[in-house]
Amino acid sequence: MQKIGKQTVKFDNPPTILETACIVGPKESDGPLAKYFDQCLEDEFWGESTWEKAESKIIKETVNTLLGKAGVSPAEIDYCFAGDLLNQCISSSFGLRDSNVPYFGIFGACSTFVEGLSLAAIFAEGFANKVLCATSSHFCSAEKQFRFPLELGNQRPPTAQWTVTGAGSAIVSKEGNGPYITHITPGKIVDMGIKDANSMGAAMAPAALDTLVTHFKDTGRKPSYYDVIVTGDLGYIGKDILTDLAKQEGYDIKPNYDDCGVLIFDKQKQDTHSGGSGCACCGSVFSGYFFKQLRDKKIKRILLIATGALMNATSSQQGESIPGIAHAISIEL
Amino acid sequence: MQKIGKQTVKFDNPPTILETACIVGPKESDGPLAKYFDQCLEDEFWGESTWEKAESKIIKETVNTLLGKAGVSPAEIDYCFAGDLLNQCISSSFGLRDSNVPYFGIFGACSTFVEGLSLAAIFAEGFANKVLCATSSHFCSAEKQFRFPLELGNQRPPTAQWTVTGAGSAIVSKEGNGPYITHITPGKIVDMGIKDANSMGAAMAPAALDTLVTHFKDTGRKPSYYDVIVTGDLGYIGKDILTDLAKQEGYDIKPNYDDCGVLIFDKQKQDTHSGGSGCACCGSVFSGYFFKQLRDKKIKRILLIATGALMNATSSQQGESIPGIAHAISIEL
Repeated sequence: MQKIGKQTVKFDNPPTILETACIVGPKESDGPLAKYFDQCLEDEFWGESTWEKAESKIIKETVNTLLGKAGVSPAEIDYCFAGDLLNQCISSSFGLRDSNVPYFGIFGACSTFVEGLSLAAIFAEGFANKVLCATSSHFCSAEKQFRFPLELGNQRPPTAQWTVTGAGSAIVSKEGNGPYITHITPGKIVDMGIKDANSMGAAMAPAALDTLVTHFKDTGRKPSYYDVIVTGDLGYIGKDILTDLAKQEGYDIKPNYDDCGVLIFDKQKQDTHSGGSGCACCGSVFSGYFFKQLRDKKIKRILLIATGALMNATSSQQGESIPGIAHAISIEL
Repeated sequence: MQKIGKQTVKFDNPPTILETACIVGPKESDGPLAKYFDQCLEDEFWGESTWEKAESKIIKETVNTLLGKAGVSPAEIDYCFAGDLLNQCISSSFGLRDSNVPYFGIFGACSTFVEGLSLAAIFAEGFANKVLCATSSHFCSAEKQFRFPLELGNQRPPTAQWTVTGAGSAIVSKEGNGPYITHITPGKIVDMGIKDANSMGAAMAPAALDTLVTHFKDTGRKPSYYDVIVTGDLGYIGKDILTDLAKQEGYDIKPNYDDCGVLIFDKQKQDTHSGGSGCACCGSVFSGYFFKQLRDKKIKRILLIATGALMNATSSQQGESIPGIAHAISIEL
């Protein structure tokens, strides 16, 4: 592997994404992508007494599903990267504490899935045979933590996004026949001063732009190189902002650009305002939908850009703006 | 680089720790290691209006100090790893948002510093020239978040540890004349059922044992190979537990084993009970004290094992136990 341009890593022996798996909650199961997910839950608790415990169970069972689908035993996994939105990433650490796999906790907010895939690819080309990544989010635990108690029945503004309940996971392997991770472009923190925790798409779009443009410059590629360019959870508003900003920079992404937050819900029927968000938004839509599109050769080249908002409830209360980040990964057949 | 044994990575061209820097708070400045720190603060706020903003300032200025000491410009840093104890790691993301360096957020609780050094070493041997790691913690923001409001004036049990206010940071470089990072042993999550958030040493010691024993088995080394074996923040109680557990496993670490949490405070004079803790405990004691010991050739081989407790306030309230983790790194001249 080698660094090319400003911040992109190019893999000389591109690792394979061997398998993916995802489990989603009830709202996601009513959405247009339901048939692509491995398991659809009927309620937000899944037999647990709290939302946090339910989220931990979702990531744990998603990893179990993944290992089963791949026919890989936990002992064959060399290292694991995981993280989520809960304070101190407890969904991941509690969900995976019995896995017996060396564990790297990561925090990239909703960019975590691609941060994990990126690090896993580096490990796989470097010295590891199989590396696991997983991430989760949960609508109820996230609302409680970042915005208002659900019991309050607060009205949601039109810019608000709906945190996806679910988990996404993948095994990255040194050996395999693709889809291959060919490049990663890790992102910088970009903060343009947005302070509204109900307008995350606007807060994250400038970071997505920075990573997108850097990726094109570093690789010499153009938007048309990819069958699909997909962001994690900019939602309807952030998607429009990114499309406009990219055009101003000379990159017309409109023909082949979409966003996981736009794809996962039916905005009209499901009352999800600006669309889906959360670590599991990108995690489940890639693991469930795009990975199968790649496997079935319906698409051959995808640029996946997961976006994250790096604030917490205290920083919002203290009047701080919302720093955004976006990590990109190029996956090709 | 190559994986050896169960989970250790051995570097073929060991990266150098080019420089370190640390800034600490007032209590640490009254402790026995004060003269080794780059800057000692007179109060916990450092001119900011909140503890969280103060913690962000500490990590930001620590990184500025580091770049100044190393004579390295931000543009020469390829990638950065950072994380802390605050919810969603906001100390790091706010402190480093203006750095303009591609950023990987990590969360390993108090093991974060070694998690960062480990990933930085992999990047440096692989494809990066210079990689930065940083971490912070703050007594006041941590007590507020994990235990009780300071205003409550709660009594602290003898098993309690004192979260270090400060930050530690390092630049890992592909080129250099050492100290070299020769091996890393990333740890697994180990949870032995301890539920008391005021007894972190006991909660983390089994994870430290697991990583310690695995490191020795993977490398074929014995405790006597190292001039110093040092854990991050097991404190007095955790240190004793680890010493005993290691002996039961056939490893006598007593002659050359110490703990950063034991070293940073004077237990008798400073009323710090079981010792220091927090990401900055290991971060500042290594960056301030042990790195200089290596540079001055007073020690030549050190095994640094940073320990983390992967719970949060909600998990404790929900009756969960405390999962521990420990990452080890071997640094040699």
